[in-house]
Amino acid sequence: MIRAGIVGGTGYTGVELLRILALHPEVEVSVVTSRSDVGSRVDALYPSLRGAIDTVFSAPDVETLSACDLVFFATPNGTAMLMAQQLLAYGVKIIDLSADFRLKDALEWQHWYGMEHACPTLIAEAVYGLPETHRESIKTARLVANPGCYPTAVQLGFLPLLEKGLIDPHHLIADVKSGVSGAGRKAEMATLMSETGESFKAYGVAGHRHLPEIRQQLALTAKQSVGLTFVPHLVPMIRGIHATLYARLTGDVGSLQTLFEQKYADEVFVDVLPANSHPDTRNVRGSNNCHISIHQPQGQDTVVILSVIDNLVKGAAGQAVHNMNLMFGLPEHTGLNTVALYP
Amino acid sequence: MIRAGIVGGTGYTGVELLRILALHPEVEVSVVTSRSDVGSRVDALYPSLRGAIDTVFSAPDVETLSACDLVFFATPNGTAMLMAQQLLAYGVKIIDLSADFRLKDALEWQHWYGMEHACPTLIAEAVYGLPETHRESIKTARLVANPGCYPTAVQLGFLPLLEKGLIDPHHLIADVKSGVSGAGRKAEMATLMSETGESFKAYGVAGHRHLPEIRQQLALTAKQSVGLTFVPHLVPMIRGIHATLYARLTGDVGSLQTLFEQKYADEVFVDVLPANSHPDTRNVRGSNNCHISIHQPQGQDTVVILSVIDNLVKGAAGQAVHNMNLMFGLPEHTGLNTVALYP
Amino acid sequence: MIRAGIVGGTGYTGVELLRILALHPEVEVSVVTSRSDVGSRVDALYPSLRGAIDTVFSAPDVETLSACDLVFFATPNGTAMLMAQQLLAYGVKIIDLSADFRLKDALEWQHWYGMEHACPTLIAEAVYGLPETHRESIKTARLVANPGCYPTAVQLGFLPLLEKGLIDPHHLIADVKSGVSGAGRKAEMATLMSETGESFKAYGVAGHRHLPEIRQQLALTAKQSVGLTFVPHLVPMIRGIHATLYARLTGDVGSLQTLFEQKYADEVFVDVLPANSHPDTRNVRGSNNCHISIHQPQGQDTVVILSVIDNLVKGAAGQAVHNMNLMFGLPEHTGLNTVALYP
Amino acid sequence: MIRAGIVGGTGYTGVELLRILALHPEVEVSVVTSRSDVGSRVDALYPSLRGAIDTVFSAPDVETLSACDLVFFATPNGTAMLMAQQLLAYGVKIIDLSADFRLKDALEWQHWYGMEHACPTLIAEAVYGLPETHRESIKTARLVANPGCYPTAVQLGFLPLLEKGLIDPHHLIADVKSGVSGAGRKAEMATLMSETGESFKAYGVAGHRHLPEIRQQLALTAKQSVGLTFVPHLVPMIRGIHATLYARLTGDVGSLQTLFEQKYADEVFVDVLPANSHPDTRNVRGSNNCHISIHQPQGQDTVVILSVIDNLVKGAAGQAVHNMNLMFGLPEHTGLNTVALYP
Repeated sequence: MIRAGIVGGTGYTGVELLRILALHPEVEVSVVTSRSDVGSRVDALYPSLRGAIDTVFSAPDVETLSACDLVFFATPNGTAMLMAQQLLAYGVKIIDLSADFRLKDALEWQHWYGMEHACPTLIAEAVYGLPETHRESIKTARLVANPGCYPTAVQLGFLPLLEKGLIDPHHLIADVKSGVSGAGRKAEMATLMSETGESFKAYGVAGHRHLPEIRQQLALTAKQSVGLTFVPHLVPMIRGIHATLYARLTGDVGSLQTLFEQKYADEVFVDVLPANSHPDTRNVRGSNNCHISIHQPQGQDTVVILSVIDNLVKGAAGQAVHNMNLMFGLPEHTGLNTVALYP
Repeated sequence: MIRAGIVGGTGYTGVELLRILALHPEVEVSVVTSRSDVGSRVDALYPSLRGAIDTVFSAPDVETLSACDLVFFATPNGTAMLMAQQLLAYGVKIIDLSADFRLKDALEWQHWYGMEHACPTLIAEAVYGLPETHRESIKTARLVANPGCYPTAVQLGFLPLLEKGLIDPHHLIADVKSGVSGAGRKAEMATLMSETGESFKAYGVAGHRHLPEIRQQLALTAKQSVGLTFVPHLVPMIRGIHATLYARLTGDVGSLQTLFEQKYADEVFVDVLPANSHPDTRNVRGSNNCHISIHQPQGQDTVVILSVIDNLVKGAAGQAVHNMNLMFGLPEHTGLNTVALYP
Repeated sequence: MIRAGIVGGTGYTGVELLRILALHPEVEVSVVTSRSDVGSRVDALYPSLRGAIDTVFSAPDVETLSACDLVFFATPNGTAMLMAQQLLAYGVKIIDLSADFRLKDALEWQHWYGMEHACPTLIAEAVYGLPETHRESIKTARLVANPGCYPTAVQLGFLPLLEKGLIDPHHLIADVKSGVSGAGRKAEMATLMSETGESFKAYGVAGHRHLPEIRQQLALTAKQSVGLTFVPHLVPMIRGIHATLYARLTGDVGSLQTLFEQKYADEVFVDVLPANSHPDTRNVRGSNNCHISIHQPQGQDTVVILSVIDNLVKGAAGQAVHNMNLMFGLPEHTGLNTVALYP
Repeated sequence: MIRAGIVGGTGYTGVELLRILALHPEVEVSVVTSRSDVGSRVDALYPSLRGAIDTVFSAPDVETLSACDLVFFATPNGTAMLMAQQLLAYGVKIIDLSADFRLKDALEWQHWYGMEHACPTLIAEAVYGLPETHRESIKTARLVANPGCYPTAVQLGFLPLLEKGLIDPHHLIADVKSGVSGAGRKAEMATLMSETGESFKAYGVAGHRHLPEIRQQLALTAKQSVGLTFVPHLVPMIRGIHATLYARLTGDVGSLQTLFEQKYADEVFVDVLPANSHPDTRNVRGSNNCHISIHQPQGQDTVVILSVIDNLVKGAAGQAVHNMNLMFGLPEHTGLNTVALYP
């Protein structure tokens, strides 16, 4: 049994980790921390976990966590980088669901996240935790930077085309839509139901923190820098991300459908739908799957890729557990073979 | 492995059965029927099941189904009663999720369902499938009548008080609210999102089909006929039932909290929340749990019981699987230990 | 033209007042205050008002407001009672949409609102602003206490029966459901869309602040104290209140339908639906109407009244404008003859 | 008073026309037709109209309609083209909210709408009813083809750039999102709340009927044929369209903000938001406004335009009334100066 700890167990990614780990056959959740709820039962805060988790919140101190084999950080940005060094010294592996170790350039990190990076020495070691691109490195990693939700959906859509050099990498467009749980569990006016229900809007068009992350990772695949216009939107629903991706084809590319099917044939959690499909976020709700379809409308030179995930699962907690499975040599789908909750 | 068949696999209770059974360790779904989709893959209609179910729809004929150990009817009312006799003759056990065998009086059934009962001889044998009241009979039943969603939530709330004779049985009030999936997967104007979204209303106040079912079962518990005012409402959400129950206390009753806790202490799926709680339907979404709390506002003689379930799980498919587990001697929670999907 | 001021123009009742007053032919909105937004244009905060309101927020000081003919308080509880005396001295009329002057007993007010009443001397003078019961007093009032949203829906439902003495006043039940805008525009975790969307729950069963208000007003009608069980619920929608009311009939009452139709025949904003109807909150969304229907299920002695309003209009801002029309001798429907926004 | 008739008064655009016309000071709704509801009161079907409309549905025959000054067709495609010739002969003006007269090429119409055009001789005369581009022709038109909802939002966003030749017209991208009321009031499985609630998807990527309409109109502005990738999506809300438009700038364009502000300075219903804004569909809900903002993220050569409307108002009924005002010489905002319903 893997003894797992969760730092920051009171946000949506934290409770989603608990939902998944409670049924994971090889994991025992031994520590869940919350600065504000020390001593309370986790299921008193989250009645959805009654009968599944009987842990009590403890304070987020390194000593307690050092007894774990693995610690998940489901914290706001800026916390994991303060504790990572010490935990690694204890031999504890780390999966950071925040953004602290996603960007390889500490200055760019500072620019987008508005604070100095507290642990730049670990940035190089941290492995970007998208199994579809970094599987082998993840298996031996001590520190995994779990990808952002938008970056996961966007990368899986562009990858097959970029790595074959079939599209113009300088003018990629990602029009992405997210449910409101992506904004987290914080007392904020902007995500009240009266503000977000029955309405739709874009936000952060001038620049969203996930932009540099996506650019960095797509450039690795493209083996050159990429140009990306990234427009996130807020959808009046709780879970789900839908990426609508546009790119210019740069020549005769053969069957896009076949290209995508072959690329993802062996991937457990990426599912290329039949030709002419439209993936729907409901069909991956609560599951770790990414559903993808490819279109070339009217045979023009603009390709359209549709890619959907559950932002809290494949976009956060599920991908983290997938990474854990890889790091501990377990079958990849262990604890993750749930079926989406439809309707 | 139990070979299970599902008749009517295209409605919401059918797809919910598939979601649960796909992960049930002791069940193999061998037949799924649909008159209109014979030959199509189930997961072509329901992409949420991709990777979990690879069955193809077959026609609903008795011979095909006779190879099953158990057949679930997830059909409209009036179908199970046409096939039950023959299937039983083949030694196939039946769990009927429709209303065909819920009422013990064939004439009353005819009154509420608007057609003659095609199989009155089996009515007496059919066991009402609420494990909390009929556990022992279910274990040996050949034919189980799975309860309605409203009746499940209402009965679990009133039972502890009625069986002790602590409330006036002649003036019970059940103000119950349901998500729209309870209306089923049918092309109807009334359940379009434009009609039901962002709105709330009561319906069927003059008389709803679940009224005689609830009255019949409460009378069994109360050992006398009961008077019930039952008002169902439609909530702009997909899953969930919230029953708010009112009754007049008939004397000093001691601690209601203790009474409920003791009554359900050994029940796997009924969870009495701590005193002063308000159950929330989200905390049982996708799970087979019923969350209950009891209140006596301002110490008056009116008791208020709050009881919530997921209408498609504890109110339909999950309860059916619970019944199956009992009929086949499996631990009750087998395949049903999922955690609610929050948020 | 009536020069109107709004204190607390940044909450939902404030912006709803602005929506209505912007098109009111006899009103000029001359002052809108907001402690936190002084100097900003109102339509910069609320783009829905672009083109309709060009006012700039000012500070809430008495001198500025003294130039108004009428001031609406759309503030949290505890603010109006600090300024009312001074404004009245200036000859300014007041409509308070908060709870400061609703309860006639200062001690009870203190009990429920958790602070001492700052202006008990005005409590007696304040007129309860439900036009259907206090029309004549409102016409000559200097200070009107605008009713709460729940109390409005509940009173209009019970009134015709209570004033005729046709129901048992000691065991009234009000099972009431509200959209989330009733919780106001405040940064709170509990009303995030991820917390309230796709879910349903009761709250405040032990005692809600609107309980004493309803009891006080129903007692006036019944000419005796009343017993009331009041259970509010939160509906995953933005606007709307649906009250489902239960009472025991105390004798032969004749046609309930006729009773209600006659009672409200001359009321501009109370609309008794045809027999066997179920009012739907969407049909009053954005309008000042109350739709009511009456049922006596199965001819039993329990009567069921369904009463729906838009909590921000008839339950707040619309009713306030109705009161203003009465106070200034305008036709009652002036500025309020909008049609509900369906779908 | 303009005597107005509405053919097809039972769909969402029909009831929205009634909502607007009921308060229009210069219009009397004299005929509302519905094949299926002849003889019923309109407000029996739509209780939201109680007190505002007392008309009874009549059969859609030409003679009855010939007494009108103007007839609105709020019918499915294929109906207006059967009656237009006769009504015009009676001197009745026509505004067709369906697609019958939008495309100038009868063969292309046949291709996209799957039936032969019954009245090709009127196609040339029909004026495309987007006031911002065809104001003068509309004023003298007998027959106006009211634009589709998507085309309205997309055209208003691209117009200022296309007419100045500032963007590459061959690779325009319109990623557009619509609430479900756009699908109409029809008994269909796909738009049930259980199917569309809490979910997001694209549809019709291979080709949507609004594509040729948008291309045709943009080509008029660009004075050359245009290339357009158009991807519509379904949002889990009732009203609202959000168009996110992408184009490649073809040189130094100066201030895009100023360009848009000047273009729309005199338009009553097009409102260019301040720089760096993100329009939100809720801020135009129920109003005839279009809110637009322009972005050039990271100073790259890709411009992003955000354009939102209420699909039933500016995208259908409101625009039709705007056209009527033009055709009858009324001030453009008559009957349309409503404020959006927020929250």
